[in-house]
Amino acid sequence: MKLSDLQTPCLILDRTRLARNCSRMIDRAKALGVALRPHMKTGKSAEIAKLATAGQPGGVTVSTLAEAEYLFENGFADILYAVCLPPSKLDRAAALTAHGADLKILIDSPEVAEDIAAHPGSHKVVIEIDCGEHRTGVDHDRSRLLEIARILAGAERSTLAGVMTHAGHSYRGRTPDDMRTVAATERDAAVAAAEAIRAEGIDCAIVSVGSTPTALYADHLEGVTEMRPGVYTLGDLFQAGIGSHGVEDIAASVVASVISHNRARGTLMLDAGGIALSKDRSTQALGEDGDMGFGLLADLQTGAPLDGLTIRGTHQEHGEVAVGDPELFAKLPIGTKVRVLPNHVCMTVAAYEGYEVFEEGSDEIVAQWERRNGW
Amino acid sequence: MKLSDLQTPCLILDRTRLARNCSRMIDRAKALGVALRPHMKTGKSAEIAKLATAGQPGGVTVSTLAEAEYLFENGFADILYAVCLPPSKLDRAAALTAHGADLKILIDSPEVAEDIAAHPGSHKVVIEIDCGEHRTGVDHDRSRLLEIARILAGAERSTLAGVMTHAGHSYRGRTPDDMRTVAATERDAAVAAAEAIRAEGIDCAIVSVGSTPTALYADHLEGVTEMRPGVYTLGDLFQAGIGSHGVEDIAASVVASVISHNRARGTLMLDAGGIALSKDRSTQALGEDGDMGFGLLADLQTGAPLDGLTIRGTHQEHGEVAVGDPELFAKLPIGTKVRVLPNHVCMTVAAYEGYEVFEEGSDEIVAQWERRNGW
Repeated sequence: MKLSDLQTPCLILDRTRLARNCSRMIDRAKALGVALRPHMKTGKSAEIAKLATAGQPGGVTVSTLAEAEYLFENGFADILYAVCLPPSKLDRAAALTAHGADLKILIDSPEVAEDIAAHPGSHKVVIEIDCGEHRTGVDHDRSRLLEIARILAGAERSTLAGVMTHAGHSYRGRTPDDMRTVAATERDAAVAAAEAIRAEGIDCAIVSVGSTPTALYADHLEGVTEMRPGVYTLGDLFQAGIGSHGVEDIAASVVASVISHNRARGTLMLDAGGIALSKDRSTQALGEDGDMGFGLLADLQTGAPLDGLTIRGTHQEHGEVAVGDPELFAKLPIGTKVRVLPNHVCMTVAAYEGYEVFEEGSDEIVAQWERRNGW
Repeated sequence: MKLSDLQTPCLILDRTRLARNCSRMIDRAKALGVALRPHMKTGKSAEIAKLATAGQPGGVTVSTLAEAEYLFENGFADILYAVCLPPSKLDRAAALTAHGADLKILIDSPEVAEDIAAHPGSHKVVIEIDCGEHRTGVDHDRSRLLEIARILAGAERSTLAGVMTHAGHSYRGRTPDDMRTVAATERDAAVAAAEAIRAEGIDCAIVSVGSTPTALYADHLEGVTEMRPGVYTLGDLFQAGIGSHGVEDIAASVVASVISHNRARGTLMLDAGGIALSKDRSTQALGEDGDMGFGLLADLQTGAPLDGLTIRGTHQEHGEVAVGDPELFAKLPIGTKVRVLPNHVCMTVAAYEGYEVFEEGSDEIVAQWERRNGW
């Protein structure tokens, strides 16, 4: 099977680029002196987790219990489930721990800390700190942080494992200086929270930070024990736009076919629409020049961008491309297969059950790797 | 199993509402004197197809070959695959026909017509007409339409089965008059194309139109043989916003849990984010009052909207709700399960492998229905 034999739309993964992206972040973690606990919310694949964790003591990060269960079945025991969980998920988390997983769960409230203390299961708990993204997490209110820590310290079966924070607002940064500033804030928030807990005589082993931009731009991570970037594994146009990597590092893309020409309107249509690409428009925030629509067209074989063509509109199964130069219709006849580089890869790959894997520079499909979607 | 026992996020389907929506459209097709060929791109479920086609001769419409294969395996033989296909999909279409399916495929170019004529398979072909949406389809250029028709009329193994058009621009309508105008344009375009083909002495049996708004607002469909609405089966906030149905008709929704409170900022977080809800923002086009963000919160048991609360921002696994009234934190403590009514249901349900089915007014899960996602 070759790239050109794939039915469309279809998700492909360049293993060479993936391995390179993984090595780069492993080296970066070593240089910073912290463990790497890669976030598998992007890849959701045991094969990707193996490459991303190579030689690393830090285990993995997940965004769903389904990912946690899947990765545990595939040999990954040390797992941080990095989304605050409601009490209704404690039974399922406890079952995973009872089967031998070293699962860490996340909370940001005294209410759920009380539920955990009262729960029959044995839980290792991480407290989320809000370092400025204002998504979830305890903010500068130290009394709330310490209240949670004390409840857990007093629990019979469960323990406080540490603190974590996620500087998602690094995605709003546009310059290396912006990123360095956010990275410092992220580090400071996590370390200060850990120190406040320790000052109470309570252990706080894990001090976890993470996002792809802050992992790449942090000046230092003193006091931090691990970092949790994720999107760097596959890469996307938004991360390329904010300087996390190059367009040539994007490892996952969608193969699509040209299905219609409209020469009068100067548009052509691909068979990859809102489901195949997702409706994510992250690059819109990068201004007109940086806006890659719903994806950037690239050559099927080489992965090189095709004349700057982007998908400007989607329907459920249609992606519309505005063709500036009429000669492009001859270059892209109906039936032509192209790659579409993803705007926000975590969202795009979520539509697929697995990856068709190839090596950079070759058109041979060498493996199929499964993904664990859902919850 | 009850609604309140479901893990979150999770897709639920109110069978009572679904059946009501299906009956209403069946009655509407009868009143218009056309067959109903419901579009299964929304539901992608054999059980939904059974309800939607009850007593109808019109078969089903699909948006992918995977849907076609799945529905054929489940007893639906008469299938229109209503997305223009590239030549690389002809083998798979022919295999389905060879197994006994009465499959109709769609094209809008002489190039693909030639490919079909040369293909060893036997194909029934429908020509797509652009009635103003400008997505795909042959426009007012009659020479192009007739060129395609003549190629198919001269083919040895394949035949022209008819014409179809989709007034997707009805979604831009805001008043009943807008909808009626678009519906008339849709009908006229399809009927005129069929008449032009017949004037050449070529058969054109199928004259197919369809979108949920035009199906509901058309004054008449003289000359049309069938209509293909789809989203009406499940309903969503966008369709409610443009008057296709009421909010109380929305049959599919996502169950989510409150996972975090941020009283200082006046926000709470659900465990349903961009993947669980999709990033579709269709209702944004309805202006500030009509904009339902990424979904409208509703009571888990009754499905009644909750104080107008909407999801204003998403992360991969987080949905953020702005809470105007601080008392709502007490009403929605961490762990509370709510329904989230979908902005654009076709996109939201695509993230799930199946439906947890219940009857309106009951909290008992009575069935699990599968979906056929992918391509």
